[in-house]
Amino acid sequence: MKTAVFGLGSMGYGIATSILNAGHETFGFDVAPSHVEKFVSEGGAVAPLADIAPNLECVVVVVLNAAQTEDVLFGENGIATKLKEGCVVIACATVSPAVARDLSHRCSEQGVLYLDAPISGGSIKAANGELSVMASGPAQALTAARPVLEAMAATVFELGDKAGAGSAMKSVNQLLAGVHIATMAEALTFGITQGVTPEKFLEVISQCAGSSWMLENRAPHIIEGDYTPHSAVNIWLKDLGIVLDIAASANFDAPVTKAALQQYVSANEQGHGLEDDSAVAKVYASQANVSLPGSK
Amino acid sequence: MKTAVFGLGSMGYGIATSILNAGHETFGFDVAPSHVEKFVSEGGAVAPLADIAPNLECVVVVVLNAAQTEDVLFGENGIATKLKEGCVVIACATVSPAVARDLSHRCSEQGVLYLDAPISGGSIKAANGELSVMASGPAQALTAARPVLEAMAATVFELGDKAGAGSAMKSVNQLLAGVHIATMAEALTFGITQGVTPEKFLEVISQCAGSSWMLENRAPHIIEGDYTPHSAVNIWLKDLGIVLDIAASANFDAPVTKAALQQYVSANEQGHGLEDDSAVAKVYASQANVSLPGSK
Repeated sequence: MKTAVFGLGSMGYGIATSILNAGHETFGFDVAPSHVEKFVSEGGAVAPLADIAPNLECVVVVVLNAAQTEDVLFGENGIATKLKEGCVVIACATVSPAVARDLSHRCSEQGVLYLDAPISGGSIKAANGELSVMASGPAQALTAARPVLEAMAATVFELGDKAGAGSAMKSVNQLLAGVHIATMAEALTFGITQGVTPEKFLEVISQCAGSSWMLENRAPHIIEGDYTPHSAVNIWLKDLGIVLDIAASANFDAPVTKAALQQYVSANEQGHGLEDDSAVAKVYASQANVSLPGSK
Repeated sequence: MKTAVFGLGSMGYGIATSILNAGHETFGFDVAPSHVEKFVSEGGAVAPLADIAPNLECVVVVVLNAAQTEDVLFGENGIATKLKEGCVVIACATVSPAVARDLSHRCSEQGVLYLDAPISGGSIKAANGELSVMASGPAQALTAARPVLEAMAATVFELGDKAGAGSAMKSVNQLLAGVHIATMAEALTFGITQGVTPEKFLEVISQCAGSSWMLENRAPHIIEGDYTPHSAVNIWLKDLGIVLDIAASANFDAPVTKAALQQYVSANEQGHGLEDDSAVAKVYASQANVSLPGSK
């Protein structure tokens, strides 16, 4: 399938190469020319958007948020009006269910299919074509997107024929994932105050009832003192912010999420916004005056 | 080994039968005569405590908290002074590291070995002799306790030769486990407000980055609408209270734990204290005016 990927960041780049490696002609677009150049050096295609848009069969949008997704589709140089009838948009950014429904509606007015398709799994799984996709939208959209979904994902959860359901499930997942990282950081640093080393923490807790997917994935970053951002602290300001916006519009109180978000806010205020999200542990370490591995 | 188990509740009963099934002569003690009678009907031994105490080789204390543990050992009818030299006490209740150190010291003054040995795994694993034990204490205590530990546990984490380390790790585990249950409840009910059914929640999230051991274990209770207490809401008032007491004494802020504890406090205030801890979801459902499975 002739496919374009918009957004070649840590997730989008891996998705684009996975689609390319599956044998699809794949065009890459990004605001950073260096990302595009790197993708072309690996065999990615490049062309002026206006030239190729009418021939595209699939568009994957892997940008930061709702505003950027809307800009790609309906902004000044938006592509939705340039795509041919039956082209499918796979929309991967974390957005609210209401935004997903709105974008789906506006695409359908152009004869363009829209798949609400947020992703989970991180940059390594993106590079390996092994993401999880939480997909919802018309059966036609799912069918049209299938070859590209198979290239980028190990698991496609089919969540019904209405845009919004995929984004709803994604926001539920983000609530949990964001809270679990902060809770891991809270427990790990609390343990240090009680003589539990971070290594012993991971060894024991990963085999006990206190474990979580995020604990097993992120605690090693703290133990190694390596805050290279696989997923940055600031992603949680955005994603937990989206969760709380959706919650507020449903008159739903989410006090544990609020407490976790505040820790990411503090991490950002203390200068760690662009570090790996496990750096939220630095907020706790600073407050309790204990040292994390690798710190001076 | 001639062993006595103090406390035949949901955890202690399973431990006692596991030790019995491993071939040790096992005496059961509980404030509720019905528990003792049931244990005897399954082959458990019973005798006046004063008669058997001098002959015991191992004492397992599986009561609710520090005060009850102290009462068993050093209360009005406390056994510590009645035990022979070299008898080992396996202390399983969740207590603070400071309490564990104190009890260990006082036992050693009587010539009694003390193993700080909190447990994790729930009542089913207790019944199957498959608990995890977070053990710390003198090498002699660990050696003496080994045959009984092997009967009750699948995994024994050896956390050093000082009482307190086991309890420290347990408090870290409880922080995580208690927060994860409340977060699961928050996410599941939030999902309901967005059209995500509890069944779909469990199916999808258990395969995604938002999963936790507790989510996979407790979400099914909510889906089945079955709040039979495997572990009750009120256990978390106690255990997260212990965590926050220890944290306060170390000048450590634990805001996510505090937020989670408040939800258990609310669950208790709303009459759910003796239900399964997954009933903390009822606090969220009531606030957001949504229905959980099985509710009217």
